Amino acid sequence: MGKPIITLTTDFGTKDGYAGAVKGVIKRINPDAEVVDISHEIESFDILGAAFTLNNFYRYFPRGTIHLVVVDPGVGSERQPLLIKSENFHFVGPDNGVFSLIFQNETITHMVVLSNKKYFLAEISGTFHARDIFAPVAAYVSRGVGVNEFGRAAKECSKLTVPEPRLSKGKLRGEIIHIDGFGNMVTNVAAESLRGKKVVGITVGRKRIRRLSRSYSEIKEGEIGALMGSSDLLEIALNQGSAQEAIKSKAGSAVTIAFE
Amino acid sequence: MGKPIITLTTDFGTKDGYAGAVKGVIKRINPDAEVVDISHEIESFDILGAAFTLNNFYRYFPRGTIHLVVVDPGVGSERQPLLIKSENFHFVGPDNGVFSLIFQNETITHMVVLSNKKYFLAEISGTFHARDIFAPVAAYVSRGVGVNEFGRAAKECSKLTVPEPRLSKGKLRGEIIHIDGFGNMVTNVAAESLRGKKVVGITVGRKRIRRLSRSYSEIKEGEIGALMGSSDLLEIALNQGSAQEAIKSKAGSAVTIAFE
Amino acid sequence: MGKPIITLTTDFGTKDGYAGAVKGVIKRINPDAEVVDISHEIESFDILGAAFTLNNFYRYFPRGTIHLVVVDPGVGSERQPLLIKSENFHFVGPDNGVFSLIFQNETITHMVVLSNKKYFLAEISGTFHARDIFAPVAAYVSRGVGVNEFGRAAKECSKLTVPEPRLSKGKLRGEIIHIDGFGNMVTNVAAESLRGKKVVGITVGRKRIRRLSRSYSEIKEGEIGALMGSSDLLEIALNQGSAQEAIKSKAGSAVTIAFE
Repeated sequence: MGKPIITLTTDFGTKDGYAGAVKGVIKRINPDAEVVDISHEIESFDILGAAFTLNNFYRYFPRGTIHLVVVDPGVGSERQPLLIKSENFHFVGPDNGVFSLIFQNETITHMVVLSNKKYFLAEISGTFHARDIFAPVAAYVSRGVGVNEFGRAAKECSKLTVPEPRLSKGKLRGEIIHIDGFGNMVTNVAAESLRGKKVVGITVGRKRIRRLSRSYSEIKEGEIGALMGSSDLLEIALNQGSAQEAIKSKAGSAVTIAFE
Repeated sequence: MGKPIITLTTDFGTKDGYAGAVKGVIKRINPDAEVVDISHEIESFDILGAAFTLNNFYRYFPRGTIHLVVVDPGVGSERQPLLIKSENFHFVGPDNGVFSLIFQNETITHMVVLSNKKYFLAEISGTFHARDIFAPVAAYVSRGVGVNEFGRAAKECSKLTVPEPRLSKGKLRGEIIHIDGFGNMVTNVAAESLRGKKVVGITVGRKRIRRLSRSYSEIKEGEIGALMGSSDLLEIALNQGSAQEAIKSKAGSAVTIAFE
Repeated sequence: MGKPIITLTTDFGTKDGYAGAVKGVIKRINPDAEVVDISHEIESFDILGAAFTLNNFYRYFPRGTIHLVVVDPGVGSERQPLLIKSENFHFVGPDNGVFSLIFQNETITHMVVLSNKKYFLAEISGTFHARDIFAPVAAYVSRGVGVNEFGRAAKECSKLTVPEPRLSKGKLRGEIIHIDGFGNMVTNVAAESLRGKKVVGITVGRKRIRRLSRSYSEIKEGEIGALMGSSDLLEIALNQGSAQEAIKSKAGSAVTIAFE
């Protein structure tokens, strides 16, 4: 058994020291916790972006890892602070949709609204619950405090709806849901929805792509291609370049897959 | 007791490997030290920015933490390398003002000009004292070497003057001293300077704000508001947006608070 | 002896969670490994940039450190995945030139093409070998698995050619090979190539510099100067500013050093 791990995913940037304060609070409460930065560069207030990021990494961590996710435009409002426990992980953050995508794969065993001030900092600001509530709670979880100690059970939590692709007349109509840092355009078309089907064309904007590639480098240089990305979602990509810059599509743009 | 912690706050960015070299030097001298990144994205040469960042996080760390802060445009000049010990923490970095704000809250017990080459790298460049002097000193401090081993006592150190707000005729005239990563404009008006006073208006540029909010989300969407931020300083903010983009004020711009 | 260290240098950014997945995979295979971020901000697909970054930090780490370097535009193609062992370090990443600069200083003892799937994730994507191959291999190396377990010996590996300066008629003609985050322009002129010579002028573009300075602050404010940088290469620099912005030279621009 290694030390307990707490991962951090925020939109704080690093230059104001806000993420630093979060780390300090954790280490003061549990010096044995290992803090792992995932990102402090989520777009400001981009809740769905945080949900996607979380979904791309959380399952690779050891069992028991505590994932702290704070993109929190509603800090200080009536939005609730949450602790979610699944069979494999803990999740701590605001109840605003940042955890929307974990429910597809995780079996949730507990969901608690954080209210026990014994596990908060002594003074709670109206602007920085990551430091005053979420970090101390994550640290106490890492020390083994039981989930039900932190507050009452939550009945439900906020979930953002991610659009589903629609199938009709030999075509699957999906859309771009995320542009990654390389400019790859990730769609909502899952690998399994194409299983057993023969793809004869992919259309995005005015661009028509003939076939699925297996890797970025299988796409001819300078051409737009399509392939199953690392999260098993269809991606529109450019070999050694940014597909997004090349074809200017955005999140929300339609992508159509034609079958034989 | 956890392992000794060394935090890093620099303007190095990460892509040149300079911050990496600092980490390597520390781990080579003390494999048990835990290195915690605060930021490598301080604006180049922004000494006051580093001082603010440090002030936002340092006190949340466990007692004994060593804070390494290197924004060092004068590297290789006659500016002195410093080790400061307070009742709670150690601070290592150049004597150029990066430690200006800790003196408000810390009781300083030792201040030493680093000169004992036994605790430096064997070769000292003229351009990279973070690697050659500050990192090894921080690592030796984390191994328990006494403060006075590193050099002679310093009589004083550089302090940047942060402007103080002025009170006259029922008004407090302060100014914006920092724009954070969300575009919130932090002023030099401390919460305690408003204690017991009834605020009836806040003016920044041509913008007039009627009252203090308690959280960002209490400000109406699309409107500029004012509130006490997480460091107990008055902030001008926009709900889910950048106040700085909206009203184009800068560090140095006047902010006036009117009382009843 | 400290815990085994695995450093990470990639062009992944942090906001998509890709670097997070790499960290999770490592911690799951070896909870005792200490993961140290060097950079996830290498320019997309900039193999030479990664090679420079690696060269600036790797040697400062403790003996036995495992350096994972993934800038990998050819992922999924026939480019080989590599494990290199030198007398002091391990290096893991794609065989595309990211390790070009370590051969100058390291004595290589083993070079292996990664093929033993026992040490990969169960499913290998065509787009993300950092997660599926390189991270698990690094983690198993950190657990003590012998180098030859991972695959067959490689005969050679890709090396990018870094241009060499040319000497003629009392002049050394080099070029700018890298611009750092401060805007300092690093050349291919090594300190040792100037040893024993008296420099009487340095020319870069239309700018003529009279002498070598020893530190950035020895250059007059607002003037362009030249000095030996922290990697013992000649740099063109501006005191408290960006030389690159001031004189608009680029990687590849000529730099001429005249001797007496």
